[in-house]
Amino acid sequence: MSSSELAFISTVASLAAGQAPGLIKGIGDDCAVLEKNGDQVLLVTTDTLVSGVHFNLQWHPPHLLGRKAAAVNLSDIAAMGGVPRYALLSAALSSELSEQGLQEFMNGFVEILREHDVVLVGGDTVAAPCPTFSITLLGDMAKAQVCYRAAAREGDEVWVSGMLGEAAAGLSLCEQMDKVPEQYASLIQAHLNPHPRVALGRFLAASGDVHAMMDLSDGLATDLAHICTASGLAALVDGQRLPLSATLMQAGELLGYEARQWALCGGEDYELLYTVAPGEGQDLARRVMEELGIEVSCIGRMTPGEGVFLEEDGLKRQISYQGYEHHL
Amino acid sequence: MSSSELAFISTVASLAAGQAPGLIKGIGDDCAVLEKNGDQVLLVTTDTLVSGVHFNLQWHPPHLLGRKAAAVNLSDIAAMGGVPRYALLSAALSSELSEQGLQEFMNGFVEILREHDVVLVGGDTVAAPCPTFSITLLGDMAKAQVCYRAAAREGDEVWVSGMLGEAAAGLSLCEQMDKVPEQYASLIQAHLNPHPRVALGRFLAASGDVHAMMDLSDGLATDLAHICTASGLAALVDGQRLPLSATLMQAGELLGYEARQWALCGGEDYELLYTVAPGEGQDLARRVMEELGIEVSCIGRMTPGEGVFLEEDGLKRQISYQGYEHHL
Repeated sequence: MSSSELAFISTVASLAAGQAPGLIKGIGDDCAVLEKNGDQVLLVTTDTLVSGVHFNLQWHPPHLLGRKAAAVNLSDIAAMGGVPRYALLSAALSSELSEQGLQEFMNGFVEILREHDVVLVGGDTVAAPCPTFSITLLGDMAKAQVCYRAAAREGDEVWVSGMLGEAAAGLSLCEQMDKVPEQYASLIQAHLNPHPRVALGRFLAASGDVHAMMDLSDGLATDLAHICTASGLAALVDGQRLPLSATLMQAGELLGYEARQWALCGGEDYELLYTVAPGEGQDLARRVMEELGIEVSCIGRMTPGEGVFLEEDGLKRQISYQGYEHHL
Repeated sequence: MSSSELAFISTVASLAAGQAPGLIKGIGDDCAVLEKNGDQVLLVTTDTLVSGVHFNLQWHPPHLLGRKAAAVNLSDIAAMGGVPRYALLSAALSSELSEQGLQEFMNGFVEILREHDVVLVGGDTVAAPCPTFSITLLGDMAKAQVCYRAAAREGDEVWVSGMLGEAAAGLSLCEQMDKVPEQYASLIQAHLNPHPRVALGRFLAASGDVHAMMDLSDGLATDLAHICTASGLAALVDGQRLPLSATLMQAGELLGYEARQWALCGGEDYELLYTVAPGEGQDLARRVMEELGIEVSCIGRMTPGEGVFLEEDGLKRQISYQGYEHHL
């Protein structure tokens, strides 16, 4: 992240400080949370994907890119536990994306919206030096069920869904190999076509058992640090309990890279990270598996202090903020 | 507009067709209109400004650019008659905009939001080849007062606020002259720092007298054609009644350009265009002047048929769709 981006974030945070009628949560979580009616709130999130920065059309089929552009925003709604409803798309187009490519992008974009019963309700298109897609997603949910980053409590267990580092490994494979062996298809898919955990987010929020929640977009080290900062706590991650797939480990050997770094600092997992009271996570995990067939793993706990620490082989080291950040 | 942009719009329109719970109006107006609660609706709009396409940092001071980036979205809320409430900003940054320039941009952006009691509630920042700003604005208003493009009726008078073509003339002056003479300052300001007609939009919508309304962003010819298409009517504009300032006419002489073309096809006026029942416009205009001190002008009427026609010196010619379009 450049100094100019950091300055921007700091400026925005200071200028955006303060309260307003109907504003429940502004900058600093996965979505802004606004009063809607009675016990319902409105969730709003926006994300921008720039060609050459967030995606590479050399290996990203436009159809899957369209899905992903929507998915990263769906994931922000999932991170609060909400129901996605309406999407707006601002597309800045250049000749880098052909007319057919654009059609495929739109098909993928709308396809995943439909899978989540989300309707495209607006947007605009402009010319630009390179393709850039800005998506705004609106959702809603019961006010009492919203899961904020700031709600972690001391002693909480820290849980994640799915496997970590898959998307980052997939990106590394795409970047470093002309033709990726078939056995790594699951990693490539995690990078090209992530599945936002909308149903899981709703289930966890509705359970009433979850304290803090967010999605993993910048890597565990950075994202867990957000929960720590917002909640005024530290976190201790057990290195032995990180959910790493056998395929991920093989990819690490293939590329001569320590696979665990993908999980800690890689980003774009779009899995959910949440905390629950000590002793309550296991039963919730069982219900998640029964209802949704999704595996979740306990990877650590919230402790007094600040920072994210990794404990392994009796050694403890601080790992927070090693990932990249692109969220305010 | 390129064929690829046209294809995009057509694809979006076809994919976005259909109804959904809570959706009152999707693509095809200045804002999407969604159910909020009881008799209130939520308005949502998004616009993207790309460096070199929508603004030129050579002559656009970042502070005024920040104001304008918000203003063009405020104008979309005004066009429905709504009250702007919350803003999200997605900023794609490059070295083209210095850290200080960015700070000035943000100051201007937040300054105009505060003038309208709008709160910045979210956004993100990313790296990009050139500065690009994507803004989403949320507003609300009484459901019964929303002014749609499709609500014009046969025989309606067509009215506009303010003067036309000022911003387009200002842009031409900036593009063609190293140093613009002081006497054209009002045109330059219209281009650099447009004032969205939020108070006027609210007043007109609350009056109950307005049928169709939209803002002028793409030039009268194109924008009035949107009202015609949406309402299933044609429009006849009286060339003698276009509100053109003396300064605009002088700028036309200076640059050897027919000043009226700026008004018809120039774009970025961000004035309001609205229709009222025959005979009712004049009294409303008097109240607008009394309450807000804003001049409005009757420029024509809605007629059966399709297309926008200009009548002058006894001649009638079709002028629709001569402006550029960037809205869906």
